[in-house]
Amino acid sequence: MTPLIIADQEFGSRLFVGTGKYASAEAMTESILASGAELVTLSLRRLDLQHQTDNILKPLQRMGVKLLPNTSGARNAQEAIFASELAREALQTNWVKLEIHPDPRYLMPDGNETLVAAEALIKKGFVVMPYVHADPVLCKRLEEVGCQCVMPLGSPIGSNMGLASRPFLDIILEQANVPVIVDAGIGAPSDASLALEMGADAVLVNTAMAVAKQPKQMSKAFRLAVEAGRLAYESGLGEKRFDAAHATSPLTEFIGALS
Amino acid sequence: MTPLIIADQEFGSRLFVGTGKYASAEAMTESILASGAELVTLSLRRLDLQHQTDNILKPLQRMGVKLLPNTSGARNAQEAIFASELAREALQTNWVKLEIHPDPRYLMPDGNETLVAAEALIKKGFVVMPYVHADPVLCKRLEEVGCQCVMPLGSPIGSNMGLASRPFLDIILEQANVPVIVDAGIGAPSDASLALEMGADAVLVNTAMAVAKQPKQMSKAFRLAVEAGRLAYESGLGEKRFDAAHATSPLTEFIGALS
Amino acid sequence: MTPLIIADQEFGSRLFVGTGKYASAEAMTESILASGAELVTLSLRRLDLQHQTDNILKPLQRMGVKLLPNTSGARNAQEAIFASELAREALQTNWVKLEIHPDPRYLMPDGNETLVAAEALIKKGFVVMPYVHADPVLCKRLEEVGCQCVMPLGSPIGSNMGLASRPFLDIILEQANVPVIVDAGIGAPSDASLALEMGADAVLVNTAMAVAKQPKQMSKAFRLAVEAGRLAYESGLGEKRFDAAHATSPLTEFIGALS
Amino acid sequence: MTPLIIADQEFGSRLFVGTGKYASAEAMTESILASGAELVTLSLRRLDLQHQTDNILKPLQRMGVKLLPNTSGARNAQEAIFASELAREALQTNWVKLEIHPDPRYLMPDGNETLVAAEALIKKGFVVMPYVHADPVLCKRLEEVGCQCVMPLGSPIGSNMGLASRPFLDIILEQANVPVIVDAGIGAPSDASLALEMGADAVLVNTAMAVAKQPKQMSKAFRLAVEAGRLAYESGLGEKRFDAAHATSPLTEFIGALS
Repeated sequence: MTPLIIADQEFGSRLFVGTGKYASAEAMTESILASGAELVTLSLRRLDLQHQTDNILKPLQRMGVKLLPNTSGARNAQEAIFASELAREALQTNWVKLEIHPDPRYLMPDGNETLVAAEALIKKGFVVMPYVHADPVLCKRLEEVGCQCVMPLGSPIGSNMGLASRPFLDIILEQANVPVIVDAGIGAPSDASLALEMGADAVLVNTAMAVAKQPKQMSKAFRLAVEAGRLAYESGLGEKRFDAAHATSPLTEFIGALS
Repeated sequence: MTPLIIADQEFGSRLFVGTGKYASAEAMTESILASGAELVTLSLRRLDLQHQTDNILKPLQRMGVKLLPNTSGARNAQEAIFASELAREALQTNWVKLEIHPDPRYLMPDGNETLVAAEALIKKGFVVMPYVHADPVLCKRLEEVGCQCVMPLGSPIGSNMGLASRPFLDIILEQANVPVIVDAGIGAPSDASLALEMGADAVLVNTAMAVAKQPKQMSKAFRLAVEAGRLAYESGLGEKRFDAAHATSPLTEFIGALS
Repeated sequence: MTPLIIADQEFGSRLFVGTGKYASAEAMTESILASGAELVTLSLRRLDLQHQTDNILKPLQRMGVKLLPNTSGARNAQEAIFASELAREALQTNWVKLEIHPDPRYLMPDGNETLVAAEALIKKGFVVMPYVHADPVLCKRLEEVGCQCVMPLGSPIGSNMGLASRPFLDIILEQANVPVIVDAGIGAPSDASLALEMGADAVLVNTAMAVAKQPKQMSKAFRLAVEAGRLAYESGLGEKRFDAAHATSPLTEFIGALS
Repeated sequence: MTPLIIADQEFGSRLFVGTGKYASAEAMTESILASGAELVTLSLRRLDLQHQTDNILKPLQRMGVKLLPNTSGARNAQEAIFASELAREALQTNWVKLEIHPDPRYLMPDGNETLVAAEALIKKGFVVMPYVHADPVLCKRLEEVGCQCVMPLGSPIGSNMGLASRPFLDIILEQANVPVIVDAGIGAPSDASLALEMGADAVLVNTAMAVAKQPKQMSKAFRLAVEAGRLAYESGLGEKRFDAAHATSPLTEFIGALS
């Protein structure tokens, strides 16, 4: 499989994961290891920046995965920019997953504020990975202002509804010149596989792994599904054909030939 | 993962494959090896029973996979029974995939003739694996007459339309006491994964592998997806929740706490 | 709109309705009137055949609609045949809606028993309207033995899930030479309209009307939707085109032309 | 049915229509009359403002429908504002359907520019009806700046793909305090009915009517479907219930009771 490249960094795995909702730091660690993920996002809110004893950050750093701080909880561009700068300092990385969601119920992203923040952060030297609605024009704009990838949603965060935005993801995938990472709503390995089959460059999964009865096993399932989806994409899937006409010879001819 | 058992035989792989539509016997062999399948179905029509030099059968026998002759092309119970007996003699197996499809266009199965043939074949000592419409009552009847599994279709053969019959498969899965193998229409790894996630015991895939641009790679993709789907099923998938309510603390509180 | 003809009888309305689940006989009567239906099915079980004071039958007879007794509750061909003969005598009609569902949970129909019963009833002079799974081969067989129409299901009875069987209904519609009436599962006017747009000759609706908060209004809504769907079918619907390319002239040209 | 009110104006019909793609002005006129629409949108580009002999405008004015100029073809806020002012002068109306789509292929709307233009136009005294992606946060923002309604898309313009954005429309409908009019992609009466059943306040349809083989009949079909959908919404639709359990008494009891 061809590797994925974002901002000159190569990733062997096309499965990105989160750190929220796990029952324990151990469960999280095991699960991330099983997922094979090389990029792990974590909310600034979840870090205890003033203490050395942080039980989320330490195991992640030991794993050697790339950390991707996110601005989850930010309600506008200003908060997101501030959080990004805080994260850069704390985690020593200029990568940021930009999340701005003023909506407390469905955590739907705010496209206008995201575009404003993206532009500002890119000027400040950040590698910006924006979480957005599956809006083709917005994704294009974010690409134009210098985002290194776009992260359109599949369905509302935590909903497990999969690729509800599919027809719009198709347009985004057709038009994008940067990697497209489907984020949010992926509830099962089949959703992840489908995203990759459609041509998505990667998926980000969190809830479906963290709240599974067996998080570690589920993470492995997602790893396999993402590999399956990418492999299928590279192997040339057939078209759906409702009118598949078949020219099978009836068995009678065969039976006749025997006698 | 728990192994699959059909008629006292254990299968490590939950991916069953076919032998049709490959460009060559070599492509078929490579592809089946990559799929990891342990059960391979082949049409009686495709065998050259009178000659030792058959280029389909020989490589399959060398691979050590279990051969499952099918009655593809049979238009009624009588033809299917005759073909089954012929296959038993030729391939030295009492297993048969029962396919009766009088419809030359969509190859949709004939439930009534299938039930008649299944009963007759079971009396003759066959292990019968019937390919049928996703009809819950028919599947129950086939189980009652002694079929060792049922093989409801996902969508028309060769259509790549996936699990079009999903709501009916759900009922079949809920009611079955024998393994349920989704057969026909599975066009992508995501379809295969979804079937397993729903609780299907196995899937049978042929066209999607055989006509891929890279059949070998595609077969590997299906292998991974089937493992992913089964693993996810055993790991406890979450529910789809449109109304996922979230109690995330806004970033402002966090930022306030810092200052 | 072209009228619908079943067994030489012409129907102005393509909406058939049931009589079950209404809060009262009055609610049923009002609702059926609002639906404009000319064919009304009723279960033999719901009639008090020994008394003149039946409060279901009387208002239906006064309305002048055609009564279609059904064999709901029959678990095999024998019971259905017996019920049909009873109904013929009691209601003085040789029409029967043949329903055989051994499954008490989802009321899924039994195709094999239905075919047996249909053949027997047709020999006895009945006009048989069989409720069946959306099984293309079975529908063809029923047509061949002399059924005057077929009634494939959209989704499980009472589920409101609409046309879950859509890809199979499409095949049935393509192949049928008798009217196809979609029965069961139609939960909203949009489902009914869609069935007619696809080319179904009629729909049968009961639960969605009877359990609505305002049954009379809902019945009117279904009447309008069925008319809309048929009208659209006859008016030539466009294809779904994901790749709709557009050659719209930009506004700038227009603005330029003004100056 | 309760009437629809936008900016203090009451509409008896919840079907809004367009004027594009008709074979002739006569076909357009007939079709709009058959649709019962009281609001008709037309592109500024399609008007011959310098001549009295315009063959689109005149018949519309004679019909007495409310004209809603749109800014179709505008690629940014500036162009859209200019076009709106031109339209206000030419058509003597301060209503405008705000369309900004820099994407020439799918005509997907630009949310950021739309928000900018909406704010500016509202300050200039316009009643702004913005065509936007089905983006819940954007719809909320447009409401906050004073838009009198929002017009989220169902699917790409002219695609006939229906309510592809359904899960997001559901969120918009739940959160909106202004009328929600589903615009673009509605390809069949069933789509229109579904939108109204979901709680949309109105739909705008153009292509599906204009390119039908019988535009006049198709327009009538949409009129009926919109009425059906609204009526159903007001009448209380039932839930979809996959697990509909049924307590039907078997026919045998009934038969037993007879003997």
